Amino acid sequence: MYIGIDLGGTNIAAGLVSEDGKILKQASTPTMNERDAIEIVKDMAMLVEKLAKDYGIEVSDIKGIGIGSPGSIDFDNGVVVYSNNLKMEKFPIADELRKLTGLPVSVDNDANCAAMGEYVEYEKDVKDFLFITLGTGVGSGIIIDGKMLHGFNGAAGEGGHIVIKTGGEQCSCGRKGCWEAYASVTALIRQTKVAMKKNPDSLMHKFAAEEGKVSGKTSFDAAKAGDKAAQEVVSQYAVYVAEGLTNLENILQPEMICIGGGISREGDYLLDPIREFVSKNGYNKYMTKTKIVTAKLFNDAGIIGAAMIAR
Amino acid sequence: MYIGIDLGGTNIAAGLVSEDGKILKQASTPTMNERDAIEIVKDMAMLVEKLAKDYGIEVSDIKGIGIGSPGSIDFDNGVVVYSNNLKMEKFPIADELRKLTGLPVSVDNDANCAAMGEYVEYEKDVKDFLFITLGTGVGSGIIIDGKMLHGFNGAAGEGGHIVIKTGGEQCSCGRKGCWEAYASVTALIRQTKVAMKKNPDSLMHKFAAEEGKVSGKTSFDAAKAGDKAAQEVVSQYAVYVAEGLTNLENILQPEMICIGGGISREGDYLLDPIREFVSKNGYNKYMTKTKIVTAKLFNDAGIIGAAMIAR
Repeated sequence: MYIGIDLGGTNIAAGLVSEDGKILKQASTPTMNERDAIEIVKDMAMLVEKLAKDYGIEVSDIKGIGIGSPGSIDFDNGVVVYSNNLKMEKFPIADELRKLTGLPVSVDNDANCAAMGEYVEYEKDVKDFLFITLGTGVGSGIIIDGKMLHGFNGAAGEGGHIVIKTGGEQCSCGRKGCWEAYASVTALIRQTKVAMKKNPDSLMHKFAAEEGKVSGKTSFDAAKAGDKAAQEVVSQYAVYVAEGLTNLENILQPEMICIGGGISREGDYLLDPIREFVSKNGYNKYMTKTKIVTAKLFNDAGIIGAAMIAR
Repeated sequence: MYIGIDLGGTNIAAGLVSEDGKILKQASTPTMNERDAIEIVKDMAMLVEKLAKDYGIEVSDIKGIGIGSPGSIDFDNGVVVYSNNLKMEKFPIADELRKLTGLPVSVDNDANCAAMGEYVEYEKDVKDFLFITLGTGVGSGIIIDGKMLHGFNGAAGEGGHIVIKTGGEQCSCGRKGCWEAYASVTALIRQTKVAMKKNPDSLMHKFAAEEGKVSGKTSFDAAKAGDKAAQEVVSQYAVYVAEGLTNLENILQPEMICIGGGISREGDYLLDPIREFVSKNGYNKYMTKTKIVTAKLFNDAGIIGAAMIAR
């Protein structure tokens, strides 16, 4: 048994996870991210003890702890090098939690952990796996030969930050035209708002009013109800997603691409045009094709994946 | 000792190569690429015998043969799946050459072999290495944890075919806006010609006339001689190269990027602005930076690298 901890800007979610990636017990506590980092680690140790107690085992029965953290992670040394959302800079989080629990601790980027979580189901058959999460940004985790790709400095796998349109939309990373600036849900919402302005009669207005805001679902709901303007938004968004995916496929040729984030709940309605684009435009014309699937674990992927990196 | 064979559209170049990647003896013969594939393999076997004889050893003293071939290669099965320039389709080249020589034979993509050739010098210290060749196209070879990345289907490492400008210049692969369509020497020549048309007084005309054609050197020579229009061509070209490199760096975070192809002879004049761009725009702001160097082996890289994949 392992503990996986998904350290978010809002909550610290922890779970006791079995060898084969099933959550046995869960617990969480608010992050209160303005606190000193060491206070957050103390709460993590508290969650570890609580999970052990709730499940009726000793902390020493746990084989290891994995933490998924936002930001730049030095995986080899267990250090959060920098994080936007936490008061952590060159913070040796793994060492600190090891001191408090007596257990071995690993830390990895949250997107990598989510990738590892979604990968568990396939690990017996698939060795090269790419996970993409479409959310506020575009995150990715790359598994090659069954192992997470970290790069020599721990910062590999930033698939969201490949420019697909030189000189294009401003990205949060400082560059212009990153994939993230077109394929994130943030970008989809921006694209939806532009289309709504141009099309005052579009059903998108109705769905947005019902939900109380423009969201990633607005254009999809309206498109499914037959709204032309929304269908254009959705089909253009699918092309943006597919353009970046094709880039990553041409570089990595993973056996499977798994797409996560809330928007992936749209399922084949989102995926079918993406599959068609990637299959048509990929460089592997004479080769076996990559399989594109949607995520299954969603919020649990972070906890399970964190436990799996400890494994 | 190994044999490395660089199978080109024009020549079959072979070399006897030492364990540590030094060419001991070389030989070549015209490819005559319209021939049946088996005839090409027979000539390869002839070169193997010739090299052994010339060096005064038996063929059986050779530990293995590596072939670098253009096209889509199934590395695991030693098959040329498809090649533009050769009459080979699903051709089991490794098996055929093994039958004729009695030696184990491996085959890989020519860009991968060149990557492996340039990598030999660094293999003791560097585990994650990216090789980019700027030529007629943009080729790449990705080494992760000391091993060539092939992807599940053998087609990985097509770094030239990442779209950096959605809807941009037509690429030979069918997509629009691929990095290759901006960063290849073919693209540089196109960019040079456009600038020459706009600037009839530019020194580029003089240098092109001297060489008898517009080449990859035209803009560089004129830029170094102080020509403003040429300097703009060179600096824009460097940005194109750097934009794609930054993309690849963000995904892979290799410890070293090595740039090959004839244009890399421009050395720091080409590399310095690229290094500046990548360093400024890369996502690894808080991490150790990738080192960017130029290739050293040029034409020999293919032979040496092919021998190294046999090793």
